[in-house]
Amino acid sequence: MTKIADWIAVDWGTSNLRAWLMGKDGVIGMVTSDKGMGALERDGFEPELLRLVGDCLPESGTVPVIACGMVGARQGWHEAPYVTTPCAAPGVAQAVTPEVRDPRLKVRILPGVSQASPADVMRGEETQIAGFLAAHPEFDGVLCLPGTHTKWVHISAREIVSFRTFMTGEIFALLSGQSVLRHSVAGDGWDQAAFDEAVTDAMSAPQKFTARLFSLRAGSLLDGTEAATSRARLSGLLMGLEIAGAKEYWLGREIVLIGAPKLNALYKAALAPQGASVSETDGAEIVLAGLRAAHEESMT
Amino acid sequence: MTKIADWIAVDWGTSNLRAWLMGKDGVIGMVTSDKGMGALERDGFEPELLRLVGDCLPESGTVPVIACGMVGARQGWHEAPYVTTPCAAPGVAQAVTPEVRDPRLKVRILPGVSQASPADVMRGEETQIAGFLAAHPEFDGVLCLPGTHTKWVHISAREIVSFRTFMTGEIFALLSGQSVLRHSVAGDGWDQAAFDEAVTDAMSAPQKFTARLFSLRAGSLLDGTEAATSRARLSGLLMGLEIAGAKEYWLGREIVLIGAPKLNALYKAALAPQGASVSETDGAEIVLAGLRAAHEESMT
Repeated sequence: MTKIADWIAVDWGTSNLRAWLMGKDGVIGMVTSDKGMGALERDGFEPELLRLVGDCLPESGTVPVIACGMVGARQGWHEAPYVTTPCAAPGVAQAVTPEVRDPRLKVRILPGVSQASPADVMRGEETQIAGFLAAHPEFDGVLCLPGTHTKWVHISAREIVSFRTFMTGEIFALLSGQSVLRHSVAGDGWDQAAFDEAVTDAMSAPQKFTARLFSLRAGSLLDGTEAATSRARLSGLLMGLEIAGAKEYWLGREIVLIGAPKLNALYKAALAPQGASVSETDGAEIVLAGLRAAHEESMT
Repeated sequence: MTKIADWIAVDWGTSNLRAWLMGKDGVIGMVTSDKGMGALERDGFEPELLRLVGDCLPESGTVPVIACGMVGARQGWHEAPYVTTPCAAPGVAQAVTPEVRDPRLKVRILPGVSQASPADVMRGEETQIAGFLAAHPEFDGVLCLPGTHTKWVHISAREIVSFRTFMTGEIFALLSGQSVLRHSVAGDGWDQAAFDEAVTDAMSAPQKFTARLFSLRAGSLLDGTEAATSRARLSGLLMGLEIAGAKEYWLGREIVLIGAPKLNALYKAALAPQGASVSETDGAEIVLAGLRAAHEESMT
């Protein structure tokens, strides 16, 4: 027998979505789909949501749905205009409510956060931040959210003071998958010493970045450098550039990494030699904590 | 009536090739093809060459063919092992001679140049360098050959002393064509002031590179920054990184740019505020001068 959800939490990104069916005592189910914002027209969001969670809706009555991520972008279901820094992580008070056909759904989409200068935006990470702050309301320091577009976020007095996005993950994917380097870095191998050395190299002379990239190709042609070494070095060069560029964020502050364990480990390895104080938490469930905080806010 | 060539010059790169039919008084014809090294198996090179120039071969006798570029790579027609710096631009003495079926062809492939540390390679540019040095044998300074993989080359006493390759052009193509920035930089527009400012920004804080890239996206979302401005700024950020990274090459030396006029102009604009002494020459025909120098060497 299918359980009926009390409310539904949705993390709806560009390329996929996750929905948690929530009961009185917590999660009663989880569904995923590859119909991210990028794969849907505006009128495709509600049908996709119903396809995923329709069985868990009651015959009558209303089920709250709290969503975050690119679903609130201009090209999404309904634009949720950015809240601007400095600001608390946005909650239901700033959410938008798209019109729906099925009267059982009451959907609220949380907005992202923008920064005027340097120009920057986030959509989705602000809800991870809300989830972290729900458990650590007195936190004063820096959250680093590694990913395709890694975010460094300065938190103080329960507010997002400032943040900065680095395209590290996306550039790694482009260079390792589609550039002249792809043959030199193929496979999944890893060489931690090469990573560490490359981080140091990039931090000490970041302006050599695009030349050092080509040296990976030359090294594999001339010296037969193994792909695992070149791959780790590519990752380390990008990471060193980021760590050097984010110095004003991590220097002298407490840092918490919120990401997948593998990515967290890379950032930890790069930050440790700098004497930075780093702890970590798995990012996978923290967005749910943020959606839950918004839901609880809406119930009071 | 088709003219018979005295000899044939070939610039055979990864994605295309150009062959010049040479008579007593110079060029008597030019043919191009998109059958670059990347599109051919080892036994496909001779048939492609015959398809292009077969009409210009005599019924009997031998026609010298001098080729340079990726045709001499390991995956090419016949590997022409790199000559290592410091060295003169390689000539026919270092060329390799692939076996051919048509007895009228005598093909020689010029080798590229490698450098042990930092690891680096070139194939094709060394022949442009030879062409430049044929006309300016006393040159002492730096040649910059802009392109997908821009080369900075220190020349002294008729030798390639050292060189460094920057992946600037390839990274611009990847970021502008395939990254999240592609919508923000679409089209062919240009904003010279934005380029100039970005060069300065990147030179003064190269470690901010991947964060400044994401600001292009944020700027177009938040401020409606025009694509022409973002495109020029993307180019300027990459250029500034390169100019800063190549400083040991250009500082206090005479610089000659050897490239397409549009690319030369960008490098000139970026170098001018540094007080660098820059002149330029169109790269399109200079490789032919290098092939001619090798042919003349082979005749003596």
